[in-house]
Parts: sequence; structure tokens; C-alpha cells
Amino acid sequence: MIIVMEPGASPAQQQSVVARLEREGFKVHLSRGVERTIIGAIGDKTRLRAETLAALPGVEKVVPILQPYKLAGRDFHPEDTVIPVGGLTVGGPQVQIIAGPCAVESREQLLEVAVAVREAGATMLRGGAYKPRSSPYSFQGLAARGLEFLAEARATTGLPVVTEVMDPALVPEVATVADVLQIGSRNMQNFTLLQAAGRTSKPILLKRGLSATIEEWLLAAEYILSEGNSQVVLCERGIRTFETYTRNTLDLGAVPAVKHLSHLPVVVDPSHGTGRKFMVAPMARAALAAGADGLMIEVHPNPQEALSDGPQSLTPEQFSCLVKEIQPLIAASGRELGRLA
Amino acid sequence: MIIVMEPGASPAQQQSVVARLEREGFKVHLSRGVERTIIGAIGDKTRLRAETLAALPGVEKVVPILQPYKLAGRDFHPEDTVIPVGGLTVGGPQVQIIAGPCAVESREQLLEVAVAVREAGATMLRGGAYKPRSSPYSFQGLAARGLEFLAEARATTGLPVVTEVMDPALVPEVATVADVLQIGSRNMQNFTLLQAAGRTSKPILLKRGLSATIEEWLLAAEYILSEGNSQVVLCERGIRTFETYTRNTLDLGAVPAVKHLSHLPVVVDPSHGTGRKFMVAPMARAALAAGADGLMIEVHPNPQEALSDGPQSLTPEQFSCLVKEIQPLIAASGRELGRLA
Amino acid sequence: MIIVMEPGASPAQQQSVVARLEREGFKVHLSRGVERTIIGAIGDKTRLRAETLAALPGVEKVVPILQPYKLAGRDFHPEDTVIPVGGLTVGGPQVQIIAGPCAVESREQLLEVAVAVREAGATMLRGGAYKPRSSPYSFQGLAARGLEFLAEARATTGLPVVTEVMDPALVPEVATVADVLQIGSRNMQNFTLLQAAGRTSKPILLKRGLSATIEEWLLAAEYILSEGNSQVVLCERGIRTFETYTRNTLDLGAVPAVKHLSHLPVVVDPSHGTGRKFMVAPMARAALAAGADGLMIEVHPNPQEALSDGPQSLTPEQFSCLVKEIQPLIAASGRELGRLA
Amino acid sequence: MIIVMEPGASPAQQQSVVARLEREGFKVHLSRGVERTIIGAIGDKTRLRAETLAALPGVEKVVPILQPYKLAGRDFHPEDTVIPVGGLTVGGPQVQIIAGPCAVESREQLLEVAVAVREAGATMLRGGAYKPRSSPYSFQGLAARGLEFLAEARATTGLPVVTEVMDPALVPEVATVADVLQIGSRNMQNFTLLQAAGRTSKPILLKRGLSATIEEWLLAAEYILSEGNSQVVLCERGIRTFETYTRNTLDLGAVPAVKHLSHLPVVVDPSHGTGRKFMVAPMARAALAAGADGLMIEVHPNPQEALSDGPQSLTPEQFSCLVKEIQPLIAASGRELGRLA
Repeated sequence: MIIVMEPGASPAQQQSVVARLEREGFKVHLSRGVERTIIGAIGDKTRLRAETLAALPGVEKVVPILQPYKLAGRDFHPEDTVIPVGGLTVGGPQVQIIAGPCAVESREQLLEVAVAVREAGATMLRGGAYKPRSSPYSFQGLAARGLEFLAEARATTGLPVVTEVMDPALVPEVATVADVLQIGSRNMQNFTLLQAAGRTSKPILLKRGLSATIEEWLLAAEYILSEGNSQVVLCERGIRTFETYTRNTLDLGAVPAVKHLSHLPVVVDPSHGTGRKFMVAPMARAALAAGADGLMIEVHPNPQEALSDGPQSLTPEQFSCLVKEIQPLIAASGRELGRLA
Repeated sequence: MIIVMEPGASPAQQQSVVARLEREGFKVHLSRGVERTIIGAIGDKTRLRAETLAALPGVEKVVPILQPYKLAGRDFHPEDTVIPVGGLTVGGPQVQIIAGPCAVESREQLLEVAVAVREAGATMLRGGAYKPRSSPYSFQGLAARGLEFLAEARATTGLPVVTEVMDPALVPEVATVADVLQIGSRNMQNFTLLQAAGRTSKPILLKRGLSATIEEWLLAAEYILSEGNSQVVLCERGIRTFETYTRNTLDLGAVPAVKHLSHLPVVVDPSHGTGRKFMVAPMARAALAAGADGLMIEVHPNPQEALSDGPQSLTPEQFSCLVKEIQPLIAASGRELGRLA
Repeated sequence: MIIVMEPGASPAQQQSVVARLEREGFKVHLSRGVERTIIGAIGDKTRLRAETLAALPGVEKVVPILQPYKLAGRDFHPEDTVIPVGGLTVGGPQVQIIAGPCAVESREQLLEVAVAVREAGATMLRGGAYKPRSSPYSFQGLAARGLEFLAEARATTGLPVVTEVMDPALVPEVATVADVLQIGSRNMQNFTLLQAAGRTSKPILLKRGLSATIEEWLLAAEYILSEGNSQVVLCERGIRTFETYTRNTLDLGAVPAVKHLSHLPVVVDPSHGTGRKFMVAPMARAALAAGADGLMIEVHPNPQEALSDGPQSLTPEQFSCLVKEIQPLIAASGRELGRLA
Repeated sequence: MIIVMEPGASPAQQQSVVARLEREGFKVHLSRGVERTIIGAIGDKTRLRAETLAALPGVEKVVPILQPYKLAGRDFHPEDTVIPVGGLTVGGPQVQIIAGPCAVESREQLLEVAVAVREAGATMLRGGAYKPRSSPYSFQGLAARGLEFLAEARATTGLPVVTEVMDPALVPEVATVADVLQIGSRNMQNFTLLQAAGRTSKPILLKRGLSATIEEWLLAAEYILSEGNSQVVLCERGIRTFETYTRNTLDLGAVPAVKHLSHLPVVVDPSHGTGRKFMVAPMARAALAAGADGLMIEVHPNPQEALSDGPQSLTPEQFSCLVKEIQPLIAASGRELGRLA
């Protein structure tokens, strides 16, 4: 930790910072420049937070040196994490394609899509039984019945199921059906939910919050990891910026950045990341070229009747084209599409 | 609703949009321009969502005309909502000052601050027993014991208590102590929590999300209102922008904007909104000049020992100066500081 | 400057950083922590840029300690700068109100507004002869004729004139009429223009760029100051964020922040900062309460006929009300409205 | 254009809007809903601006239907624009790689890089003789001497030269050397410069502004096109967001979006878009997969001695690897790397 003192800080103020650091077991080095005095502190940073030091009189700013996450970082876990999901693996040489409707709307709708995406090459099924919606007047999902349909779709197609959970109290129920529990963007810092997810033994797909920095995203993963669940898949799905043409700004730079900072796998959701059907395929290609471990794509048998996210949903035919298009890209990068048993 | 067709949309595509609208009971008007055809639709917008129409082939964009919130909007509720809290009122001529520590750290700390802020002129006490923290390694609050200390501080000082709840399952417990239940920024779109809060009879202080538009904030309020709880106080606490000098960018324009769009009261938190002690007083003054119904300010007996938010916490002395400074401002605006019985 | 080495940096890499620093005359201190090695460097930072060091192998990040601006900062110029403009002063106890139309549209329009705002209490006249417009098809200003009308309006009313210059080649021409040269938001990092403005002896009103950090804004001022012109007035006019209800997000926190970091005066433009007429008065009050040295407000005799910025322009009557409303606020802060001879 | 009236708008106010529209030759249709009256207007939108209507009493909002740019849009120019540059073409089947140093620092540096990037596969040379720098104390470029070195490097290698111009007065001088004139991000809305560039017969590479929407970017292109120069290449180079890990957020979604809205070619600059060397190659691959017409990449013989942008500059060896890596990607997309005569 580096503590920069204000230009007019008194010797007593400097001494008080040094004393505080030493009291907490830090090794301290003081550098007096012409314009500023700088205090370097080496020790166990979990014992003293930067903001506590920043509140001391005479302190201009505190610069933390180490990353605030440990379990999610590469420093102490250099090798990639590979997560098994129903016979497949996420984070290794396989690329996974998670496809399906935004929301489970009916048994027929779900089964139709599930069969179609399986045929087209999808390796996992997505679909929300519980849906977070900005407006209380929008369709909120089929809840428990939606879970039943998901279980049936898995039985029919063999596709592992990725589905969202919003309420900490429902984590056990959703976990009975889900192969992967999804935590949505709006809940990325719902710490109660993160902890509940961390107490299960299911892989967790953690979507990046709309305005979450990469560091905050990895700290959210740390909440899950620190409860004992080491199976976290990160999902970039677009951030909020000033641009209004697209629904969100898909931050593909986050893919190599997260791969550099963390050992966790990263998948990309170009459907939410753009909000526009015609952009899904080019951004899916770009995501894989950037190094993503998989894709998450919304497919609906009849997008213009979809109860949510119609404008960004592909038809099964469009999805099938997309899968064909990305095959050479996957091959060119020395990877392979996941293969179900 | 206005539907703009693509330049090359076929007559069949136009007809299909019109048919869909008429099927849902809309009155339709079609305008053919040289470059675009535009379809106006009048009817019950809750029956057909803009995004469903946007997914129809040949549709370029859909422009909703009405605000998506009803209960939170001024259209059907033109007069200001005034919310009673322990003998005070929020949203009427009174200005309230909610002060106290970020987190309840101990019985002594809380009682010391509570007595000090009451003497300085605060009209409500803030303090978190449950704390949402970006890192799992930061202090997470005293939980149930924190609630006990808050109850004791209220008994001692007479100050109504504002405290945060993060877990839907804990809403009833926190509501036994809180005079006002706070929903924090990170949970502004935790819809399960909003609904749980809407089922209580307690006033809810709803903080704006870090990247929430004003519309999304009012829709979050709508979740609470639509459950039957009409007592929502909005709290502007800064939004996330590219500026890094301040912790957040305090959006004071949101105060007149929300007052224009909604009948709900609005208070401002200049502590989180700036993250810097020296900015709290000027931004508190500015908030009141912009028309805020109250302030929420972090005060700690010893900011440099605070377990959270030290750099933005005022000492009781600094807080006392701030209250003196804003008195003429309150008077000049024809309002008065709340007075406890 | 603090240099943080990567976890795996070799001793040779560390040595090469140290050697480079010493070669440039820096005093170096090396701290070896368990997880990172940190190198502190004290010396003349203008000789070696942080980004050069960041490019050295093994370097994780470089943290600059000193502010990159010198002339604009308070460190070496602690007292406030007070700038004389036509018998008035900006930055001292006086508050100035700069009012007038967005664009000079005709002799009649300008004279009518100038007389009206003078009567209502404005102390300077604004009006663009050269207008930066997002579209090449929008009204671009009356150019040289606009300047003539501004000169006539000053002769008639005695109000000093603030007007924008966009082209470095036109700085001398505009400076023959302007009492204050305005540099617009879009040109805040038009360095050629900043340098041309710095070579005049006129006060410069420097608007903050749409996405400029406070540091970049002060560096833009530094460009002007470093050419020898010490008369820079900063103008906060809103930044670009994700919020779309307002035209921009007025960052009033920038007022106390800039006052803390710099000795230069700051005025606020609530017209561009909000883009909505009904928000201009509350945000004007808030700006003064936050400590602004003045206001810049768009007034048009007939906003619905304005060739630009109609929705945010006040009528002369609305402007007159605003001036009356802010008088007690100015008095309460111990300041006074500028008074023309 | 759609005009939405306020809920309480009077019949007289509606009539006045209608009258104004008819006076300007618009065909008007009025729809009275239960909650709002909506006025549709069809006609020549260049005669009446949305903001003029928005300023009329009783108007809640105005929704423009047509894109504000004509020459840059696909509506009236459906086929892709292909721009010839020194025997190569931008915007057709060829992919171009523009490589070179951020700034021309010396004759030796430039020639060394030029030869190296040519050998590695670059098809154009970049290098700044005039450099826009945030600080007046940073290296500002070699100016006229830099242009001489660029001319010599072209003579030696055959690579066409892309170089920036910042001052409208210097456009003719820079155009004597440049094969492509670059307009930088900070000058994207320097309209005087755009017009000067539009009066030359050189292709213009127009970088997206740090906080420019796609619409504003295309309007900036429209400034150049409307002066008679139809050769504009757009360059996505990252936008400013809240994320601080990367220097900017590279918005690759802008590639398919611009291709959809406009006929102009788009290249991507992953060096500025990330600011970090290790991210340049993955984001270069992703840019091509998203459909970009070319890349712009910073290469320096010795990044740790670079006078600017060292941390994001590749060595010639790293650049050579990158070119090899992207070859299969280019082939897979049915395109080919540009080939110099």
C-alpha cells in the first residue's frame, strides 16, 4: 500500500500514519520528496483497509498495490479452471454454446426450441423460469412450472440446463433442476444471493453487472468462491454506456482482460450485449476470436410472439446458420465445439 | 405507440403489423411518407409490449409514448406524496436530515453519534446493521445485534431509525426495528426484495442504482407501490460515470426531474455522492437549493477508525457546522427543518 | 512516482527499471514485499513520463503521485485568481450572470434580448456568432455580421460580451469584439485553438468537454496558461452519461472539486447542463449553493422560434424571475451580484 | 416527425403546433388518445428542426423518424463505398493493416519501423508528425520534419502514409505528404477541421470521438461528405466508459452497426482501444471477425523508449506474430490481405 501525504501535511500527521501502520504489523518506508511525502507499507493488507488510512488527517490518497481478490485471481492459481457440466467442460479446449429462449413461456415453446437448438449444434439449454423485469407489469416467468418444463427438455434432448435464480430462498429449489445456476446482471452485487449460490455444489454462471468494473465482477465471484464453491463461469453481456443505438455495449476487451487476471472461464452473451438480431452473429464470431470459452444466445421459435427479448432473439434457422459460421473460427483457434454424450 | 417501418418494408409486412395491433384492440393510423411508413397505435399499452412489435419483420423501431410507470407518475397523482415518519413528515414543507454512521460498529459508537447528531439538529438516525460490501473480506455489519443497538439509540434520542435490508427473508425482522427500511443502490433492481418491502407497512427509502436511469428508478418504486405500499422516499446518491476524482457523480438534476415526473419525495446523500469529506457540505447546500426534501449524511465520532466510508464521514463537529450553514438556505426556500416532538 | 513490478518480474527487470530511473536523475527506493516489489522514485517528473516506465518489461503499473498540471493547480498558487472583465470581476466576491441567446440570429433579436437581460440583472451578454453544430445542415451562425451585432449590443447596454471562437485562424478577429473568448465543449481538447487563445490577452471561458475528466479539463486550461494567458474561467456545462432524460448530467460536484484543486474561477451553465427549461432555475440555485462564481444562461425573446436550443432557453420574463429567486441565495453566501458601472 | 403533446395541453396549443407544421409544408395527422395527443408530420425535415417544435408550449417530446445524415447513410447509397489508396482499396474484399509508431520520433526510428512492418505484412504506414497530447508538457511531434521523414519512409517501402492533421490551416501542407489524412478522436467535432478536410481530394480516416454516439460519428462524416469529399474511412478506437482497467472500451459492436447504417468502410484500432499490449492481438482478431475492413496498430522498435503510447505498442516481432495469427481469420471470412504493387 502506498500512502501519499498532502503537500501541507505536518510531521505529526506523518508520524500518526506511520504509527498506525506499525501498530497493525506493517513494515513502513518513508520517502520525503520536495513536493510530497510518500509512505510505503508492506504487510497483511486484509488487516487494514485503504479507506481507513485515507480518512487519517493529512493523507491525500492511498494506492492499493495488490488486487483485492485472492481466490479469483491468477496470482495464486495460475492454471485455468475447467468446470465439468453434464459430461462437457467449460474453460478447457471445448467451446460451449448455450442457447434457448429468454423465458420459458410454455411446455411446447421450450421443447420446440430445445430440440431445434440441439439439432443445430447447441451444447446447453438456457431458459428463465424466474425472470427479473424492469417493470412489475411485464411477464415474470412461469416459476416452478417453468423448472418442470426445463427438466423435461433436458430429459428429451440431453442438454444440460442453465437457468436463473433471483431469490436466495429459492436457490435449493432451482438447484434441483439446474445444471448451472445463473446469477443475472442486476443481481451481480446481491451479496445474499451470491453467498447462497456459493453454498451449493452447482456451477454458477455469473453475469457481469451493467456498470460493474472488471474488479467488482471478480470480487462478486470471490463471494461465491469464498463460500467454498469453486465453479464460477463469468459471462460478459454488455455494459451500460452513453451509446443508445445498441441495448448495451458489449465489452469484448473484458475477455482477454479477465483471462489475464483470473483463472475462471468466460463466456459471452451477444444477444443482450447488442439487443439487435442482426448484430448477434458478428459479435458471436468476435467473442470467440477474442478468446471466449463459449457463447450464450437467445433463440425463440417465433421471436415476434416472444414474451421478452424478441428483437434480439434468433429463429432456430438463424441460430443454425450462426453455428455453421463459427465452426471454422473454432477450428482456426485450435479448439472444438463441445460434444454431448 | 408509434411504429416506424424500415425503408424497404413490404405492404404485407405493414399489414401484418396493423393486423397484430388490431387483434389486441388498438386503434391504428397509418401514415405513408416518402421515405418511411409510420403506424400510430392507440389503446391499452399493457396488452402489447413495444419489444414484441419491434420483433416483427419490417419494423425499424417502436417509440413508446406513455411512461411505463403509473403509480409512481404524476399523471394520475398530481399532488405531492407526504410520508409520516415518527411524528415528522417527508415530502411536505419539512426538510429532514438523516445522519449517522455508515455501519453500526458497536453500542458505544452508535449511541455517541446518535446523541451528537440529535444535538446538532439531525431529525433521523441512519446506520447499517447489514452492510453490502464489494469484497467478502470487508466488515459485513453486526446483523441482529446492530438492530438492537439501533432500537436503543432511538429510545435514547427519539430519532426515528433508517436502516438497510438486503435479504428478502430478513425484511420482517428488520422492519420490527426500522422506522424506514432502506434499499441500497446495488439492490435497486433486486425485484424479490422490492416486492418483500412492498408487502410491509413501513416507509421505504429507495436509493438510486449506480447506473439506473430515472425511468428505471421510478419503475423500481413502482414494484413497491404495486404491492400496496405507497410510502416510497427516493434517494439520489450519485451515479457511475467516467469521472474518477469523485467516488460517484451526484446527479442533482435528478431532483427537479423526479419532482416533475413523480409525486414521491426525494432526498440526497452527498456523502456517497462525492466520497470526499470536503465536498459534503457544498453538495448538501446544492441539494437543498435544487429542491430536495432532505439529506442523508454519514457522521462518525472518529472517521479515521471507521470500519467503512471513513473518507466521506464527517465528525459530529463538522456535521454541526453543516446544519448551521444550511439553516438560512432552508428558510430562504420557505421550508423548515423537521422538529421532533 | 511509484512503480509496481509484476509478481514474476526478474531481478534483471527490476534492475533495469532502477537503472533507467537513476539515469534520469531520480532518487530511487526499492521495497520488496512478499507478493510484489515496489519502486519509489523521487525527482523531476517532467523528465520521464509514467507511460514510458509502464512499457518496461516486468512493470505491472505506474502510479503518478503529483498532479500533471502546475500553473492551473493550487499547490503553487494557493490564492484564488480574480479576473477583471469590463469593470466587473470573476472569481472574487462578485457573482456574474452571463445571459443571452444561444446564437446571434439577427440584429433585432440580439438587441431585444440584450436590453431585456440587462434590465433583469444580467451582468454579461452571451451569444454565438460562430456555432458548432452536430449536423452540417443546422444553422451555423452569422459569423462576422454576428460579431458586429454583438459590438452594437455592448455599446447599447454596457454588457461585456462573451462569444465563442472555433477556428484558430479567427481568434484575432473574434478577439477584437469579445470581452471574453469562449472555447466550447467540443473544442476543449482542440490544442491548436487552446494555444491560439493562450496567445491573446483576453479572458478565456473554457467549457468542460462532454467526457472530460476534471484532470483533463485542468490540463486544457494549462495549455492556455502555459502560453502566457493567465485569465481562464472554467465553465461546467454537463457531462455525458447513460442518463437520457436530461441532455447532459450537470456535474455540480465539479465546482467544489475544481475550487479545491485549482485557483481558477468556475461558472456553471444550467441551460446546456439540463436541456430542459423547467430545470434551469433549480440547477442555477444549486450551482450557486455549491460555490459557483457565476452562471451562464440561455435567454431568447421567443424560444419556440429559436434557431438553436429553444427547449432550454428561458424567456426574458422567466430569466427575470430566476434572477429575483437567486438574490437571497447570493446574499446568504456572503457574495454580491456584479454591478456594472 | 412525431410530436407528443403534454397530458394537459390545450386545444389552442395543439392548434398552434399544427399551424406551424402546415406553414412549413408538412402533411399533418392528429391522433387523440385517452392520455396523450400525438401529431404525425410528414414533409421535408430539413425545413423544421425537432428542437424548434420541442420548444412550443404544450409539447412533451418530439421523436425524429429519419436519420439526420443523408450522404453517410445507406438509405440513398445502398452499395458499399470502396476507397482507393495508393494501389490498394479500403472497403472492398481487401483487408488493410495500417501499422507504425504513435509518433514520428526520428528519421531512424521511422525508417526502422516502416521497413519492419512492411516485411511483416502491413499494407500502410501510420505515424504522427503533429500529435494532440493531453498535457502541454508532453512531446508534441516533429511537425514539418516529421512529414519529410514520412515521405522518405513511403519512398523506401512503398507503403501509403496515414498521418494526422490537427489545424485547419495545415491541411494543405499535411495533404502534400499524406495518402490518407487522419482526424483524431479529440477533433471529431472540430467542424472547422472537418470542413477543411472535406475540401481536399484525399481520403480521410475519421476516428470516433471518445464519447461520440454512432449517430454523431456519422454526422461528423457527413460534414466531410457534404463538402464534396466522398472518401471517408471510419475508425473505431474505443469509447470512454466507467471501466478503468483498459484505457478505453473498444466498441466492436460499432462495426456491424455502422456497416448496417452506412456504406462507409470501418477499420479498428485495438492499440488505443485497449491501451495494453497483451490485448492488442485478441482484439485485432475480434475486430476482423466482427467484419472490420482493416486494422490500425501501433508498432515501435523499442516500446520502452517510445515518446508516447509505449504500453500499447507492439515490437516488430510481436506485430509479425499478430499478422500471421490473423491470416487464417481473413481467409475464413472470404477476404484477403491487401497486396502492394
